[in-house]
Amino acid sequence: MAEEAAVRAQAETVRRLKQDKADADEIAKEVAKLLEMKAQLGTDEGKHKFVLKTPKGTRDFGPKEMAIRERAFKAIISCFKRHGAEVIDTPVFELKETLTGKYGEDSKLIYDLKDQGGELLSLRYDLTVPFARYLAMNKITNIKRYHIAKVYRRDNPAMTRGRYREFYQCDFDIAGQFDPMIPDAECLKIVHEILSDLQLGDFVIKVNDRRILDGMFAVCGVPDSKFRTICSSVDKLDKVPWEEVRSEMVGEKGLSPEAADRIGEYVQLHGGLDLIEQLLQDPKLSQNKVAKEGLGDMKLLFEYLTLFGITGKISFDLSLARGLDYYTGVIFEAVLLQQDNEHLQEPASVGSVAGGGRYDGLVGMFDPKGRKVPCVGVSIGIERIFSILEQRLEASEEKIRTTETQVLVASAQKKLLEERLKLISELWDAGIKAEMLYKKNPKLLNQLQYCEETGIPLVAIVGEQELKDGVVKLRIVATREEVNVRRESLVEEIRIRTSQC
Amino acid sequence: MAEEAAVRAQAETVRRLKQDKADADEIAKEVAKLLEMKAQLGTDEGKHKFVLKTPKGTRDFGPKEMAIRERAFKAIISCFKRHGAEVIDTPVFELKETLTGKYGEDSKLIYDLKDQGGELLSLRYDLTVPFARYLAMNKITNIKRYHIAKVYRRDNPAMTRGRYREFYQCDFDIAGQFDPMIPDAECLKIVHEILSDLQLGDFVIKVNDRRILDGMFAVCGVPDSKFRTICSSVDKLDKVPWEEVRSEMVGEKGLSPEAADRIGEYVQLHGGLDLIEQLLQDPKLSQNKVAKEGLGDMKLLFEYLTLFGITGKISFDLSLARGLDYYTGVIFEAVLLQQDNEHLQEPASVGSVAGGGRYDGLVGMFDPKGRKVPCVGVSIGIERIFSILEQRLEASEEKIRTTETQVLVASAQKKLLEERLKLISELWDAGIKAEMLYKKNPKLLNQLQYCEETGIPLVAIVGEQELKDGVVKLRIVATREEVNVRRESLVEEIRIRTSQC
Repeated sequence: MAEEAAVRAQAETVRRLKQDKADADEIAKEVAKLLEMKAQLGTDEGKHKFVLKTPKGTRDFGPKEMAIRERAFKAIISCFKRHGAEVIDTPVFELKETLTGKYGEDSKLIYDLKDQGGELLSLRYDLTVPFARYLAMNKITNIKRYHIAKVYRRDNPAMTRGRYREFYQCDFDIAGQFDPMIPDAECLKIVHEILSDLQLGDFVIKVNDRRILDGMFAVCGVPDSKFRTICSSVDKLDKVPWEEVRSEMVGEKGLSPEAADRIGEYVQLHGGLDLIEQLLQDPKLSQNKVAKEGLGDMKLLFEYLTLFGITGKISFDLSLARGLDYYTGVIFEAVLLQQDNEHLQEPASVGSVAGGGRYDGLVGMFDPKGRKVPCVGVSIGIERIFSILEQRLEASEEKIRTTETQVLVASAQKKLLEERLKLISELWDAGIKAEMLYKKNPKLLNQLQYCEETGIPLVAIVGEQELKDGVVKLRIVATREEVNVRRESLVEEIRIRTSQC
Repeated sequence: MAEEAAVRAQAETVRRLKQDKADADEIAKEVAKLLEMKAQLGTDEGKHKFVLKTPKGTRDFGPKEMAIRERAFKAIISCFKRHGAEVIDTPVFELKETLTGKYGEDSKLIYDLKDQGGELLSLRYDLTVPFARYLAMNKITNIKRYHIAKVYRRDNPAMTRGRYREFYQCDFDIAGQFDPMIPDAECLKIVHEILSDLQLGDFVIKVNDRRILDGMFAVCGVPDSKFRTICSSVDKLDKVPWEEVRSEMVGEKGLSPEAADRIGEYVQLHGGLDLIEQLLQDPKLSQNKVAKEGLGDMKLLFEYLTLFGITGKISFDLSLARGLDYYTGVIFEAVLLQQDNEHLQEPASVGSVAGGGRYDGLVGMFDPKGRKVPCVGVSIGIERIFSILEQRLEASEEKIRTTETQVLVASAQKKLLEERLKLISELWDAGIKAEMLYKKNPKLLNQLQYCEETGIPLVAIVGEQELKDGVVKLRIVATREEVNVRRESLVEEIRIRTSQC
């Protein structure tokens, strides 16, 4: 019995071992399968981790968004052309050293390309530095140009408010040695025209001058070496309250509390010609050479803006600083005012939609002999404008067409693909915008539905009887009216009928 | 004496020490100065190495180049719209993994961005992979769209021949499950229309099918695993002679010499419907399932192209392979033929200006469930077209306008800046394209010269007498004719006069 028990125990052990082995094989097989699947996926992370998305802070523009975008671009470009601008384009990346030392504290937001051998490159951060590089490189001392292209900033995106890492800038700049404030005034006129044209609601264009800021810093007791960094602090005033900005100045940047308080008094001021006059009388500011220059030019600017009839939307605002290092004179920024009548609030700013200023030293930074080319320019912040236009369109339920197709070439019976191909080819060759369904034998109903969905106004219907008679049946989608048109008159008929709508 | 000597020695030591200290101070000062200069330069390399250039393989587009570029874009976009395409846009960079495994041997040419924390990104290599990612991400199974944007390849640039590292692609694609070859035929029609419209000279569109190539490889004895790499070798036939391609196949890629020779016979063939019929009877090819499918569709394609009336420019060419991995069906490439009648040479190809094909599997690579969306598309190689148009313009001495300005607002006497500003503002607000010189008191001659140089057709001259009389003197630059126009009729008069020219 003991033997039997021993045999049975042994058998049980063998069975268990076999089972273990089988289990192990099974597991090994499973692992191999998984490894194979992983290898097929071609990445180290496996399919479950494959993310189908655009990079952080970027987005696709589908046909509907593109239709809105092109509408906005059209308004902007036609304004730039109205002011006689030429157009240029530059590469999306520049030598890294071209961008170095131009953006102050914001330089950390520049996208660098990987060093794959060869030159070190960075994506452009704005269109202004490439423009200055272009002028110096080609020894151009005189140009009025616009440039519409994408720029890149590794910022924290806030996409619902139109803040992206890849975004369009629409820049208009005037380079050259001219009489004071005439080009500067034109830049403000352009902002005014574009914002009015796009009907984005009420707006204000804040204006200041780096020379007034510098003079103000000097008379407030800011050491020269701290001008730029204190300027960066002031720049935050549109987002954070004065108390926070003050504590940054004193705590982080080592400014004396007294100097900060003196700045605090100035940066509350905003107004028009009256404020300029008042500051020209200011016992401290009027003693400062650069401030006086800046105030004198600001007065001249307001005179020109009066001739343009746009001072109603302009505010001389001492809190406006602008972040970038390269500005040397007039600076400005346009903000939309919230229109929230229901809540009866004070008009609040919903963010900047355009900005710019004078940068007389930037081109000289690129010129081997330091030759300066004075420049002034404006940049339209189109992404925020897109966001507003998109939201408005969504709310309005207006149906926006995404194609311009004038006519669908359709057939009423089967086996007419060849006839459709022949007819559509004739229409294309005559410059008519035409589509057809890519099916051998589509149903007439489906073809008509396609027109309803996409807004195609006309249908050219090929049928056996019509072919015999040498005519095409032209259907007007909106009215469901149908007329027979002689084939040789079809192009003309389509042109007439679509020029009306 | 000894004491004196000791004192003298001590004094000497002190003097030397002082001198040393002074020297050291001087050196330290110099070093500090140098460090400061270095810091100002902002680069580790110093100013003498600062290079004023665009990155290798890229270029700026000045106003003249842009005028040419926009002319070409206009022709291309109007063709795409004529065929009912919508437009989309995608970011300039994609997640690196989105591009992985799509471009075969060309993947090494992809630009990567530096890892600055966050996602790993690469610049787009073409517009096709981003399009497929867009379709899969948005679950779009049906769209006809165009996309015009820059793509990036770390290739060896040959800029004089229009080969850049940053270049535009103009893509038109049709996605969706449709009856065979109808969208494919439309893509070829589009290439034909665009190349005809741009008047680039004689061209031929080579057509082949990946299935015919695969079938040909199979019947020639190429192992399945080598199809893609042998395909890459065949792709080089437009640049290098067969002997070189053969030795790459045999030497580098380990193909048997017999198989290579069999391929060599096929790839010499090109023709039209007759060749298709001949190959359908080919004892080996006709036994291969995929080749037969490809040949059958090729026949259908030629039938449709006959209806479009464009077979005269189409060549079914078995040497056409196309480099990219993702093609699955029809492939094509348009090449311009050299027009060198003086030398009475055979027409020689001067390079590809358009290409494309069918890629039915690409969208499925992005879909989590592998759902396929069949696609076919065409890409216009616009840079080479620009080069040709630029050279032609250079040769023709045609003067191309770079602005659209209709009128220059000028003054005949001094102190009329304010009046010019008022008038130009009125014109801008009425939608007239107007410029003025940015000088307080410009000379009339200079103002007229500016019009001659830039092609502005009209001058509106403000003068004291005219202001009193309520008129503006309108000068027609071409004829030097001058007429007084009542101020309230000026806008209308400018419109009429510039709509004529």
